[in-house]
Amino acid sequence: MSKQQIGVIGMAVMGRNLALNIESRGYAVSIFNRSRKKTDEIIDQNRYKKLIPYYSIQEFVSSLERPRCILLMVQAGDATDNLITSLIPYLNKNDILIDGGNSFYKDTIRRSKDICKQGFNFIGAGISGGEEGAMKGPSIMPGGTKESYELVAVIFNKIAARADNGEACVTYIGPDGAGHYVKMVHNGIEYSDMQLISEVYSLLKSALGLKNMELAQIFSDWNNGELNSYLIDITKNIFLKKDENGKHLIDVILDKAAEKGTGKWASHNALELGEPLSIITESVFARYLSCLKSQRVIASKLFIGPDHNKILISNKEEFIEKIRRALYLSKILSYAQGFSQLRAASKYYNWNLNYANIAKIFRAGCIIRAQFLQKITDTYIEDCNIPNLLLGNYFKNIANQYQQSLREIVAYAVQIGIPMPTFSASIAYYDSYRSAFLPANLIQAQRDYFGAHTYRRTDKEGIFHTEWLNCS
Amino acid sequence: MSKQQIGVIGMAVMGRNLALNIESRGYAVSIFNRSRKKTDEIIDQNRYKKLIPYYSIQEFVSSLERPRCILLMVQAGDATDNLITSLIPYLNKNDILIDGGNSFYKDTIRRSKDICKQGFNFIGAGISGGEEGAMKGPSIMPGGTKESYELVAVIFNKIAARADNGEACVTYIGPDGAGHYVKMVHNGIEYSDMQLISEVYSLLKSALGLKNMELAQIFSDWNNGELNSYLIDITKNIFLKKDENGKHLIDVILDKAAEKGTGKWASHNALELGEPLSIITESVFARYLSCLKSQRVIASKLFIGPDHNKILISNKEEFIEKIRRALYLSKILSYAQGFSQLRAASKYYNWNLNYANIAKIFRAGCIIRAQFLQKITDTYIEDCNIPNLLLGNYFKNIANQYQQSLREIVAYAVQIGIPMPTFSASIAYYDSYRSAFLPANLIQAQRDYFGAHTYRRTDKEGIFHTEWLNCS
Repeated sequence: MSKQQIGVIGMAVMGRNLALNIESRGYAVSIFNRSRKKTDEIIDQNRYKKLIPYYSIQEFVSSLERPRCILLMVQAGDATDNLITSLIPYLNKNDILIDGGNSFYKDTIRRSKDICKQGFNFIGAGISGGEEGAMKGPSIMPGGTKESYELVAVIFNKIAARADNGEACVTYIGPDGAGHYVKMVHNGIEYSDMQLISEVYSLLKSALGLKNMELAQIFSDWNNGELNSYLIDITKNIFLKKDENGKHLIDVILDKAAEKGTGKWASHNALELGEPLSIITESVFARYLSCLKSQRVIASKLFIGPDHNKILISNKEEFIEKIRRALYLSKILSYAQGFSQLRAASKYYNWNLNYANIAKIFRAGCIIRAQFLQKITDTYIEDCNIPNLLLGNYFKNIANQYQQSLREIVAYAVQIGIPMPTFSASIAYYDSYRSAFLPANLIQAQRDYFGAHTYRRTDKEGIFHTEWLNCS
Repeated sequence: MSKQQIGVIGMAVMGRNLALNIESRGYAVSIFNRSRKKTDEIIDQNRYKKLIPYYSIQEFVSSLERPRCILLMVQAGDATDNLITSLIPYLNKNDILIDGGNSFYKDTIRRSKDICKQGFNFIGAGISGGEEGAMKGPSIMPGGTKESYELVAVIFNKIAARADNGEACVTYIGPDGAGHYVKMVHNGIEYSDMQLISEVYSLLKSALGLKNMELAQIFSDWNNGELNSYLIDITKNIFLKKDENGKHLIDVILDKAAEKGTGKWASHNALELGEPLSIITESVFARYLSCLKSQRVIASKLFIGPDHNKILISNKEEFIEKIRRALYLSKILSYAQGFSQLRAASKYYNWNLNYANIAKIFRAGCIIRAQFLQKITDTYIEDCNIPNLLLGNYFKNIANQYQQSLREIVAYAVQIGIPMPTFSASIAYYDSYRSAFLPANLIQAQRDYFGAHTYRRTDKEGIFHTEWLNCS
């Protein structure tokens, strides 16, 4: 009996769609799922496809050509560990395990060590694109040894999304946890992209009283310019969508933003690495706050807003253009923070990340796909050591052209009482970053005052401590 | 030979000062330090005091009355674990170990379990007050079993700071890690208090061009009102301090804010618990950003600021009063977030925290000591189940009276290009919290669109998923 070149374990939506994607590129695919029912369903729905079902791990493993290539698409955490443990006894040297789940990168680092030590290959691959991306072509971020990557590069290249110029959205990211790390930052950026858009929605609706059809038109226009991206595009479609009764669906969706728990990881790690990831973190907190719906409803009756909850907007077109500029600059600032964090992690873990290539593989397939990612790639190609994206020429020019709009939009929103936490964090970051002097000298003085934590001076070298209470 | 009632291990500044504090209340204190030199120095400097030095753990332990009471004042982390391991063989049932270091509360939970299982008592005590507090009376936050606490309550009561009404600033906080948890939130609040003050400093200096002596006067005035607190008081003193050349010291201190790594724990945990701790977190990020000094200096030459970097302030007094109100409200919002997080943690860990008592023990001894903590105590005495401090009458009234000032100050700072990240986060939180509707409905729509994550509706029960691309 002939054997398959690849197998997929875990037939939830992502696993199933990836298996179908692989099959569509000319492979026969062994599949396995913990519950037999799911496997049978899928086989039933895909009768004429080369998906070969197995009902025990042992049979599944035996069905694969050596070195075996096994893609694990199960829940992150214990489920992944348990699956690996149950696979190991059936593997041979050089077999390749690919964890394509949403694993925490520190788990991937640990697993990578364990599994490689036993003579197998292990790849932790971040895979983004949702169900549609999995089926038609996701963005793939594989981490592991270069040798392991080479063994699966052909398949990855075939199933990945294609950028407009035909390049596959997959590249070798780096050792062990690097792939899942990049996926984590991708997800954080996704959070801030979504939150920024939702704040724009809130402002356009409140300040200009726009209807859904008008909002759809604005997002449609924006999608033809610098903001061109998947999330802007689907937002336009969302405003057009009506429910079975002809109501705009967006108007009846409950305003409590859920999350699957991975968005906060990037913020977590920012705190660990000493990186100011303020925009993404505000996005995470904004979701948390949205969930306090019952408190918010009570508070809305107890707390007053500004003296003027409308300020005349003399030129509507101009105002919308300012919002567009503010959104684009805020988005850039959020990516600048995210890529700065990649840089810190690369240094910390010795990953030698290639930021130009990372931005490249985000151009298609994944949720944050956007035209402007090419600008990030270009910036890093020009100078791969640039400490912050903002310092690149393109981004510097945009910042200087758009900062006034971002400023005016935030000031306006604050004055009329519309919360725009991530826009506010964006301008605060911009103004902090361009400040040669920040008032942190006072914090250092306070720390030395109450805790003898010492300080440095601007006028001489050394470390100083002052007895602050002695009269001078 | 008579034995001592208590011993202290670890003679760094906090341990030494606590030993002296205990001694000053009439106790003879056994002391031990890893390096003999330190012990000898301290004995040498305190010849007529009842500090009894020991040079081996065994002798030290033997010198104590049973049940032995041992206060550990060593570095958090491995040093604490190693010390405990080396002590255990010499302990008897019911002996009491008190970890007074800055331990991470999850370590305290783990140690508490381990040590109690072996028949000893363990208390994880958060201790705040810096070196001066340790010596004269700190604020103490002890966690552990109630029985363990009772064994040391007398000593704790004697050495703790006293509030104006004479009450000792110590109270039983709750089981295992509760004490160190509360200390962690205390530290987070300390970060935001300091950052808020530093932003005020920056604004007063830039917008009004105030000199240090004028700043000192303002902080002195403020210290006589609602803002009365230790940090406002020392800030006044800092502006008065001159160096050996007669220069104001604050003007030559380098603006890179250091940290000892504990401030971020509160933010870390906020992300875990789903609590929007935005103000404290922005304070942590502000410190990180301050450390990018060399990038900031470069960026200051590349990036432009607002069209107008001064906006006429017609009434200086009124402007300063607005800043005062903005500061007080931002401070309240930060504490509201912190106490909301305490509530979430109490529920999660089953700690049954008493928020009124926690605010009470912050009134003296610790770094965040402030008059307004009495208002927090009063609020929780009136209703210990209030979900957010803001909803209490006193705070609700302040918020409604001061929100306009906070709003105007943030809008002003954004317009003139002064970064005020924590003030910005404060008004964003206020406006979000009082919003019955937030634009999170759009985020839910996006999530369902690309990931089939489903959503709820406002007009009917249930969980929904939409095929967004089908024409409606």
